[in-house]
Order: sequence, then structure tokens, then C-alpha cells
Amino acid sequence: MHIAVVGAAGMIGRKLVARLVSDGSLGGHPLTRLSLVDVAEPERPQAFAGRVDSSAVDISQAGNATALIAARPDVIFHLAAIVSGEAELDFEKGYGINLEGTRSLFEAIRLAHLKDGYRPCVVFTSSIAVFGAPFPDVIPDDFNLTPLTSYGTQKAVGELLLADYTRRGFLDGIGIRLPTICVRPGKPNKAASGFFSGIVREPLAGQVAILPVADTVRHWHASPRSAVGFLIHAASIDLQLLGSRRSLTMPGVSVTVGEQIEALRRVAGERAVALIRREPDELVMKIVQGWPQAFEPKRASELGFVADRSFDDIIRVHIEDEMGGKL
Amino acid sequence: MHIAVVGAAGMIGRKLVARLVSDGSLGGHPLTRLSLVDVAEPERPQAFAGRVDSSAVDISQAGNATALIAARPDVIFHLAAIVSGEAELDFEKGYGINLEGTRSLFEAIRLAHLKDGYRPCVVFTSSIAVFGAPFPDVIPDDFNLTPLTSYGTQKAVGELLLADYTRRGFLDGIGIRLPTICVRPGKPNKAASGFFSGIVREPLAGQVAILPVADTVRHWHASPRSAVGFLIHAASIDLQLLGSRRSLTMPGVSVTVGEQIEALRRVAGERAVALIRREPDELVMKIVQGWPQAFEPKRASELGFVADRSFDDIIRVHIEDEMGGKL
Repeated sequence: MHIAVVGAAGMIGRKLVARLVSDGSLGGHPLTRLSLVDVAEPERPQAFAGRVDSSAVDISQAGNATALIAARPDVIFHLAAIVSGEAELDFEKGYGINLEGTRSLFEAIRLAHLKDGYRPCVVFTSSIAVFGAPFPDVIPDDFNLTPLTSYGTQKAVGELLLADYTRRGFLDGIGIRLPTICVRPGKPNKAASGFFSGIVREPLAGQVAILPVADTVRHWHASPRSAVGFLIHAASIDLQLLGSRRSLTMPGVSVTVGEQIEALRRVAGERAVALIRREPDELVMKIVQGWPQAFEPKRASELGFVADRSFDDIIRVHIEDEMGGKL
Repeated sequence: MHIAVVGAAGMIGRKLVARLVSDGSLGGHPLTRLSLVDVAEPERPQAFAGRVDSSAVDISQAGNATALIAARPDVIFHLAAIVSGEAELDFEKGYGINLEGTRSLFEAIRLAHLKDGYRPCVVFTSSIAVFGAPFPDVIPDDFNLTPLTSYGTQKAVGELLLADYTRRGFLDGIGIRLPTICVRPGKPNKAASGFFSGIVREPLAGQVAILPVADTVRHWHASPRSAVGFLIHAASIDLQLLGSRRSLTMPGVSVTVGEQIEALRRVAGERAVALIRREPDELVMKIVQGWPQAFEPKRASELGFVADRSFDDIIRVHIEDEMGGKL
């Protein structure tokens, strides 16, 4: 099986490639070839005996998606995206990559389909940002698309295109709406959502973390490991089961910041918790107010998508996958 | 006030221009200038003393939208679209006009905004085709976007872009989801929905009409006159009242085909009804099964949008506006 990963140099992309190589197969089909693309050249996995093509390309530029599709990958994971904060700051860049890039990829697939009937499985990473307040406390699968950011708008457009290109028979698509990924590894960043990971990651590393919101703020989380599991599962199931509604809200863990902190106490003790410094930030509080708190992802659960069992587990995943299992 | 109508040569476009000229103002502002564009050159209204620019342009082609926006119209009615049936038959043409055309128009407005703060009112004609089965019997305002045609997909994308460009402050947008327009004047066409108008229009003109579905089929209708009324009203109200959800399902008349026929009997007598010939068509029946039957357009009603009162009225509008008031 030939698998392409668009956005392979990102955090989820790298973990996905590592998992694919470690599994050696997908949905029972042996993995023989990888095509990895991103705006920066993705690393080649060491432990893989098959063919790897890795290249630094922007798929929103003419011809690049066509070149990727020329090799007719069986499965395409489309993870490439300008993240929420940057898409909000740089309107043109966000629309360029998140909307034009996605259209460009789907168009390259359609033109290949018209040529020789090519019809790959496409796993599109969407986001809970396709939803915007006002919300019910628990958001159902059929909540309407009401994004309140340019990023969410671009992801919602991607979902609509994915469904139409699938309905037309050009590709076999599934969109998965990822929860906020927590604990995000790496350095603190300035994303408004950064503190959700920061209040766990920094204390675990013996550093101070700033908490800008109240302990009562509730949000929807999944570990990077779960996110990769969703992607793999999406490419392994019979997509006909989705019917015409091709995008699914993924399961996650709904916890308050207070519950996150209690989980940190249970897993890493009082000393870690003591490193959280409360510095209320009106702006962040206002932004976070418009975010979803919990979902009831019935369809995804029925289709076998499985999230972390608890926020304690989310913390343990971080310790295992990012800290070599040691505190 | 300078008003631009994109798609001014179409059925609704022509009626809108006639109504604007007849009113002589919009929302209390005297009409001083009209910019009319369509792929075929729109007719110039005779009775208008102000400036009229009329041109045959395809706004999806580079530069054309920019040229239209260079004159800084205060209000832009964006009606240009490849209709449902054609967008389904010609994928590239549908996406070209309905998606690229809309983006191109919004982008021209954004670039003008960045230059001098220009921020026009944009009335975008969407459609109930943004919704797809399975439906509840009566569809609420917040039903999710689930189009089952390329046309519906393109309109849903337009709605999402409209909301984001509005949120960013580039324009002040409102999307109105038109019901099926009935009675559509002119010749019978091959659209699957054509019979809804045909079974009224043809008998009123003394001609035979084919009815391909059962009398129990229910659908959502508005007269061309009501559609024009929605457009005018949309450009006249305070759009801040919409909040972030910028597209509204318009009110309409929910009737079964049987009720349409009873209305025809009341308005035009037995002789008209006798011209309807029942010729069941499995394909049309199957298509129509996936269509919405009724909506509860609370938001639009609260904002003062008013539909025809009954299907009898819809027939009378056709007789008045298309037949000089005479049977």
C-alpha cells in the first residue's frame, strides 16, 4: 500500500508516519511506499524498508498536488494546515493553504480520476473549530457549521468539498474533527489555547506555567496518540458506513481546568501543581468563552473511534511518548 | 445610492432591477446609480434617470470583479449562479461560477476595503439546497449544512465565506436561502423541479402539463415577487441584528402537489386542472424524495421577511405579473 501524508513535518504528521512505519501495514495491507510532503521537507523514517519520497512543496501552488497524485497513492492523509491563530492573523496565508491547498489537492485527484478512474481514500483533518457559539452544553453530531474564525471557516469549506467530491465518486473521503490536542509537546506558544497544554507540560518539566483563565473553564481534549489513532482508524474502516455526511466529530475528554489540575496532582504530585501560576487574562478568557466544552460524538463512537479514557491517561501518554516514561 | 446587481440578466435579477427602479430608493436612500453585470449584457431599465452601467462579464474571471468594485457600489446583490441542474452536469462550470465567482467578488471587496475602508452591504442569494436529507418534517433555522448537490455545496461555501468576510469587517453580508421559486415564468425546462411551476403555468396558458410525482409530494415555495421582496428587505434592515450567523432561511409556502392543484382549481377553474396529465417518473420521484418539505424560518420572520400567504396568492402573482392580470 502506498500512503501519502500531506503535512508530514507537523507534530501530528511526524507521529502518524512513525506509527505507520511501526505498524508496517494499514487496514491489513502491508505498507510498501510513503510519499511525504510539507512546506519544509519531512524527515525520512529510518526504520522503513520501502520506498520513501519526501519533498518540501506547498500543495496550494499549481502543479505540486498534481505531482503528488501522479504516483497514485492509495491513501492520502491531508493534515497540512495553517493553524488557527496564524490563519486569523494572516488572512491570505490561511485561505491560501487551508482552502486553496485543499481544493488544489482534491482537484488533482479529480483530474486523475477522470483520466483512469483513480479513487483514493482521503482522510481530511478537520477541527471542532467548525463549530461556533452559541452552543448547547453538549454539542450533538448534527450541530450546524457555525465557525467563528477564518480557520474554522476554511475547515468547514474543506468538509463540504470532501463530501461533494466523495458523492461525485472522485475520492472516498472522511473528515475527522480533532479535539484540542493536549498535551501538545514542544515549547509554549502564543495560541490562546496554549495554556491547556502548558499547565501540564511545563510543570512536568519542572517549569512554571501561566494559567490565564478560571478553573471552571471546560474544554474537549485528545492526546496526540489518540489523534494518530483516529487517523489510522479513519483509513481502516468501510467509509460507505458514513453515508453522505462524511465528517465526524471525534471523541475526546471533557474536563475543566480544575479537573486537569487534579489529574496532574494524581499523576505527578503536589510539586508539579505548585508550578501553576494564576494570572487571569481578560482577552484569553473572552476568547475561550466562545469555545465548545463537550460533544456527544455518537457516530464516531459507533464506528469504533476511541479516545483517551481520562485526563490522567492524557498526562500519562505525554510522559510515555515525550519524556521517555520518566518524570 | 449606488446599487450593483451581479446576475442582473437572470429572471430574479431583471425583476429586482425593475422593482428598484420603480421604488426609486432602497431603505430610504434615493437610487442614483445602477451597475448591472451578467454573463450576457443585462437590459438597461428604461424608466431610470440615474446612471446605468451594464456589461457582459464573468466575475469569476480575473479583474472583472475588481472593475465592478472600483466604482464602490453601496449595495451589491449577488445573484449570479449556475443553477442546480447545470452545476450537477458541468462540475467545473458550477464550481467556476458559484464558488470561484463568489470568492472573486468577495476578494475584490476585501482588497478595496484594505485600500480605503470600503465596506458594502452584500446580499448573497443562497438556497434551501444547502440542506440535504435526512430531514425532520419541519426544518429549523439551525439545521446543519448537509448539501447533496454540487450547487448546494457551492452555496453553503458561499454562506461560510460571507460570514467570515463579514466577521473580518470587509463587508456587511446577509445570505438569504430562497425557497423553490414558483411560478417560474417562461418555457418548461428539464430541471427535476420544473413540474412544480409547470403544473400551474402551462394550464393557465391553456397548455398540457406533465405531473411526474404523486399528489402527496410536499415542497417549499415562494413567488418571484416574494423573492424580490426578500432581496430588497435584506438590503434594508440593520444587519447587526443577525449576529454572527449571516444566512437565513426565507419564509415560504409549504404545500403538497395536491394542494397546488386545489389552489389552481380555485383560481382558474376545472378547465385548467383538466390540463394536468399524470405521468409518474421514477427518477424524478426519487430525486424529489430527498428535498425539504417545510421550514420553520423563525429568524427571518422575526426580522420582518414576509412570504406569500398561500399558494392561491402565488398563482395570482403569476397571473398579475406575467399574464397582465388576465386569464
